Formats: sequence, structure tokens, C-alpha cells
Amino acid sequence: MHSYNKAFFEQLDRQDPLRRFRDEFVLSEDEIYLDGNSLGAQPKAALAKAQEVVAEQWGTDLIRSWNRHHWFQLPQRLGDKIARLIGADQDEVICTDGTGLNVYKAISAGLSLRPERRVILLEGSNFPTDNYMVQGLVAQLGHRHEIRFAEEDELLAAINEEVAVVCLTQVHYKTGRVLDMAAITRYAQERGCVVIWDLCHSAGALPVDLNGCHADMAIGCTYKYLNGGPGSPAFIFVAKRHQGAALQPLTGWWGHAAPFTFERDYRPAPGINQMLTGTQGIISMAVAEVGIDLMLEASMEQIREKSQALTQYFIELINSECAEYGFVLASPEDKERRGSQVALSHEHGYPIMQAVIDAGVIGDFRAPDILRFGFTPLYTRYVDVWNAVSRIKKVMARETWRSPVYNQRHAVT
Amino acid sequence: MHSYNKAFFEQLDRQDPLRRFRDEFVLSEDEIYLDGNSLGAQPKAALAKAQEVVAEQWGTDLIRSWNRHHWFQLPQRLGDKIARLIGADQDEVICTDGTGLNVYKAISAGLSLRPERRVILLEGSNFPTDNYMVQGLVAQLGHRHEIRFAEEDELLAAINEEVAVVCLTQVHYKTGRVLDMAAITRYAQERGCVVIWDLCHSAGALPVDLNGCHADMAIGCTYKYLNGGPGSPAFIFVAKRHQGAALQPLTGWWGHAAPFTFERDYRPAPGINQMLTGTQGIISMAVAEVGIDLMLEASMEQIREKSQALTQYFIELINSECAEYGFVLASPEDKERRGSQVALSHEHGYPIMQAVIDAGVIGDFRAPDILRFGFTPLYTRYVDVWNAVSRIKKVMARETWRSPVYNQRHAVT
Repeated sequence: MHSYNKAFFEQLDRQDPLRRFRDEFVLSEDEIYLDGNSLGAQPKAALAKAQEVVAEQWGTDLIRSWNRHHWFQLPQRLGDKIARLIGADQDEVICTDGTGLNVYKAISAGLSLRPERRVILLEGSNFPTDNYMVQGLVAQLGHRHEIRFAEEDELLAAINEEVAVVCLTQVHYKTGRVLDMAAITRYAQERGCVVIWDLCHSAGALPVDLNGCHADMAIGCTYKYLNGGPGSPAFIFVAKRHQGAALQPLTGWWGHAAPFTFERDYRPAPGINQMLTGTQGIISMAVAEVGIDLMLEASMEQIREKSQALTQYFIELINSECAEYGFVLASPEDKERRGSQVALSHEHGYPIMQAVIDAGVIGDFRAPDILRFGFTPLYTRYVDVWNAVSRIKKVMARETWRSPVYNQRHAVT
Repeated sequence: MHSYNKAFFEQLDRQDPLRRFRDEFVLSEDEIYLDGNSLGAQPKAALAKAQEVVAEQWGTDLIRSWNRHHWFQLPQRLGDKIARLIGADQDEVICTDGTGLNVYKAISAGLSLRPERRVILLEGSNFPTDNYMVQGLVAQLGHRHEIRFAEEDELLAAINEEVAVVCLTQVHYKTGRVLDMAAITRYAQERGCVVIWDLCHSAGALPVDLNGCHADMAIGCTYKYLNGGPGSPAFIFVAKRHQGAALQPLTGWWGHAAPFTFERDYRPAPGINQMLTGTQGIISMAVAEVGIDLMLEASMEQIREKSQALTQYFIELINSECAEYGFVLASPEDKERRGSQVALSHEHGYPIMQAVIDAGVIGDFRAPDILRFGFTPLYTRYVDVWNAVSRIKKVMARETWRSPVYNQRHAVT
């Protein structure tokens, strides 16, 4: 048995090599924000950036900002920065559009590399937008392809020579379970499959080595661990060896070989730019760079080490302090197989999470019974773990979650 | 011959019923901004809105903002507001994604209504992203469809019972020519075609009556005449009678019938929500509402009247003051057939526009030889027309545009 106390965690914070980063974010002293896996906190510098883009760039330089402030280059510049966080090379990543749209592009491009194959393999319990997008694509293509759903323990058995594309989320959005990217990629590529990784819950949460794993394509999100702001643009990675061959069908003018010649006919841009569609929301994208820049200042190894420690302490404290309240760990016990979040299942998960939020611990609920707590090492302190469990314990001990008000609310994402 | 002078235009400004709106925008006193047809000017209130979304909503309320600040409802709320500007009903318009993506959705949905037909009719000289998107779609669907390009005078002859979808831009991006939406829609629908209107250069520029014209679908832009900010989200209209039948294939979770149940399988949302894909750039979208709200305060009839007057005076002044410099009017002479811009062609159009910009008149150049000047009635004054032509005349008289520096620049959109 441990003998943790608040002072123990405060001491860990004093020794934390990442401790300076918390001050870069806007965070309340009263609240413990454990939902950075859904929407990352606001970097203080994001406000000045938004003001700059609106007032100085748009307001003053108007149309000239496209060149003067390099608005046209934002997708490439942000993509190159994200590349450094996920083990990709320059000109392999571009920041654009939303996650679902990038899934659609990646699957389409993957199918174009394997025209003779008909199966797309997905994890059925994945965050549904990936599945929905593939279902839309398959219907659009006349149901000539088959979607196979497999869960983690069925994956390898489902990967065979019929499969054109394997699309998997490395860190499961509900449980935080980490798939072995290197092993699965190798296994699937040995069987001729194209492998696409969804990094929504990976980028900025743990070290990712796309090229080290020889991944074919990847997509991901900037508004979770990269703290890019609400709905900030997603990204897509296409390995150099596939660029020019793996083409996506949403062929807007930003993906043209020469956008400003205004030719009548589409010619694909060489390289990663073909993954672009059209004009991007510049304010959202410019603000996203602030969070990405902050992440680049941190060591991803230190991030991972702290992330594992935070989740481990949280699990241990829930086990010791809340043992009688019926929580069941839904995340892997093994910290190597766990992302930067902890999922607890509980039959009354929904009202409990609402009461916990009211007690100042901001996590979220995922149907049917999962309480999710995200631990974002850039700004979550060790003492937050201690305080969060203390508050959860109070909610459970006092049974405040049984109040009818907590069953009447809308789900918060 | 006229006998205009500066005082004449200043008098028009004093009588202008829209004059109060100029003060709502950030505009330089030294510059004459005639590029609002490419990027609208910044409403002063946009800065406070950006600050509010970043600091108060994202920064303070974090994940709870999705409900508390109605982030999830932004696409519907903005869509309903845009509907009032384009003759659509509530729940027929949604604000989301970019123009090109919405073209792709609309064409896909249009084809789904006419599965037995194989031809898509476009104007070849249209802004190319519409054409590119259709070319991408046709290639993706295995070249089972044929794209026919027609120019304005060939359109009616090209519309027949083979055509599934007619997709036309009402106001031509280069020349500002206005197509007769009511007549073309009727003519095409009598032949069984689905008619899609691109309103990028119409929305906020002139009265549009989609339902009065019985249009099937439409798409458009908010960053031009609606002053939504750089790359602010586009919109898509689907007439009520087609909703539920005209489905688009980019089936992300925001377009699901029950997004928060996280079901494995896609079920299309009823109504216009099916046109949604996934999470939107919230900062860009929230800021866009400011410009849309301003436009809603103005009378579209007054906008059109002033727009026609501004473009007419500009043409007359160019004709009288710059007669010897070789400009040729590339926009319709008839003000009823002209949008809110004037295009002049000139063999040295590119360096001339660069020199004109340096002289403080911000227009833009479109290959191969078009100088575009946009007149946005909310913030362009009559005296701006006089001053702009005076400056253009000086550039031409002094031949400053012949300086080599003006041939070396990059094109500005």
C-alpha cells in the first residue's frame, strides 16, 4: 500500500521538468481540468495571436495578408511543425480541414493504391466519425467495397490479402488503449495492406514515430493535446513514397499544381499539397500554431513519462480512496499500453460525471458507462491528481450524484 | 458628357442611406479598398468577438462551451441568418466547411436525385475550384459521368434531358456578369435537371431569391460580401423538398442523426444537418457571425441600388478620365446584368494593378488580363470611386506601372 498525501504530489510538481509550461496556459485555480483529451486548454499567447490575425492582418493588410502574412503557407508550415511531433519528415504532413474529411481522403487514397482489393478494415468501437466516413465512401462507390469491423483482439486475424486498407486509431478514444503501431503496420504490410493511423489521441500525448513504423498514411487532430483551439484544423500525413500515387478526390483549387493560373482543368499538386481542398479558416488555423509551437518546446519523452506517472497515480488513488464505490478500470493497467487518459466504467457513469464536474473536476462521459479523465502533462500538475480524487471521493461518499438534476442534462463532449 | 467632380460624390455620400455602415468597419483613410469581392473588410466588432471566443469561451469555460456558448449550433444559427439574405427558408441553409467541399456535396447529392442521367453541366470559365471538385468526383466515380463545359451564350443549348445537374455561378468571378437565375432554373428544371447555384459573388452583393426561383441547391461564401473573415466557413442550401433524398457522401459525425450516441453505423440526420461533416473551426465561425449580422441590418435593395450606382460611376469615370489608356470594359455594360464589381481588361493588366495598389487603390488581377475592382456598398463611399479613378489616371499618365518592380511580384488573390 502506498502512503501518498498532498505534500508528496506537491513535491513531484516541484521536481517536474515540464512545470514551467503550466504558466503558459489559462487555467482556473479552483477547477481541475481533465478534459484536455477532448479540448485542450487555451495557451495564453492564443489571445494575442487571435487579436493579431483579426486586427493587424485582416483589419489592416486585408487581402495582402495572403502573401504578407503567409496565410497561404499556413497548412504547410503547421504541417511541417506537426511532422516533428509524430516522426514524419518535412513535406509529409499538411494541416487542413477536419479529421473526418482527412479520413475520407486517406481511405480514398489508400484504395487508389490497392485497386484490386475490396476490404476496408476498421475497429468497430473506434470514434465513430472514422467509421461513418468510410461508410459514406463505400456507399458512394456503389457498395463495391466491404467494411470489416474487428475489435483489438480480432485485428490480426482479420488482416489478410483481401484487405486493401487498415485504418486504426492508435489510442482508443474511450479506453485510452494504445495499439502497437510498429507491429500492426509490419504485419499488415506483409499482407499487402495499406495502413492508416488515426493519431487524434496520440499527437502531443506520446511519442509517435510514423516513419520509424513505416506507416503509409495518418491523420489527426490539433485541438486535443496540441491545444490548437476549438475545432482547429486537422492534419494528414502521406509517406513520401506514396505521394503522387495516393490521390484524394476532394480536388479543390488549393490542391492544384498551379492554383493561381486558374486553369479550367484540375492537375494534382505534386507532393503533400494534393491533400488540400480549398480556402481554410485562417483565424482558427493561425491560432492553432500557438499550441503547436508550445508543444514543440517540450520533450516528448518527458511528456510521456509524466503522462504515465499522472495516469498511474490516478488509478492507484482511485483504487485506494474510492475502492468501495464500484468504479472499474476500463483503461489498460499496463502503463505502456495506456495513452494519456484514464477511463473508468460505472453503471451510474453519467450522473456521477455531472456531479464530479460540479465539484470542479472537469472530465467527460462517453456512452454507455465511461467516465473519461484526460491527463495533459503540459499543464496538469501532480497535485491535481490528488485533488481530483479527493473531490471524486466526496461526490461518491455524499452521493450527490443521485440528485435528479444530474440525470437531466445534455451530454457534454 | 457628365460634369462630375469630387463634391458631387461627397454629396451622394451625405445622402446615402447606408452611410452609417462604413463606421462599423476598420478601414484606412489613405487607402481605397476595392477588393471586398475577394476578402471583405473587418467589422470592428469582429475583434471583440474573437477575444470573447478565445478568452471567455475557450479559455474560461473550456469544453463546456460546446453547450454553454452553443458552439454546436453555430452552423445552424449562421445558416438560418444567411437564409434570410438569399431567399431561403429556415432549416434550408447550413454554414459549414469550405466552398469547394460544399460544391462536392451538392453535386453528389444532385446526382443521387438523377441516378439515370450522366451529364454534369458547368461553365468552363467559372472559378476553377467548382470545376476541379466535379472533376475529382467524376474520376472517383469511375468516369461514368461526363462533364460538359459551356459558356454563357451556349448554356441553354447545352441543357437537355441528358443533363443530371447544372451547376452555375450566378455572378461570374472575373467579369461580374449576372446570370438570370429564375429563367435558367425554370428552363433546366423543365428538362428534368437539378440546378445548383454558386452564390460566392452574390450573397450580400445583390438580392437573391432562391425559393422564388425554385432553386434545388446552392452554395456560397461568407468571406467576400458577408465580411466573415479570412477563410470563414461557406454555406450550403438544400431546398426542403429535397432534404432526406439528396444525400451527400462526406458522412461525418456532425451529420449523424444522433451524434452523441456514438453508434457504430452512420444514420443520416434528417434535414439540412446531413450536409455537415465534422467539427468546425469555431473561432473562424464565431467571428463570421459578426459580418453576417451587420449585413442583416442593411436593406438588400439599398445595397443593390448603391452597388449599381458605384459600378456605373466607376465605368463612366474610367471612360471619361482614362479613355486614352487602353482599358476595355470586361463587365456587362447593363447594370442589371452586372454584379458588384467592375472588370477591366488591359494587355498590361498585371503590372498596372500592382502600380495601382501601390497608389492606394486595392483591387486585384485575374489572369490573363483582368483588373478587378469590387464595390461593397456597406463600406465603399461614392467619393472612393472618384478618388480611385483619379489615382488610376495618375498611374497611367505617369506610366509608373512600367517599372520592372511591378512585373516581379507574386499574384495576390
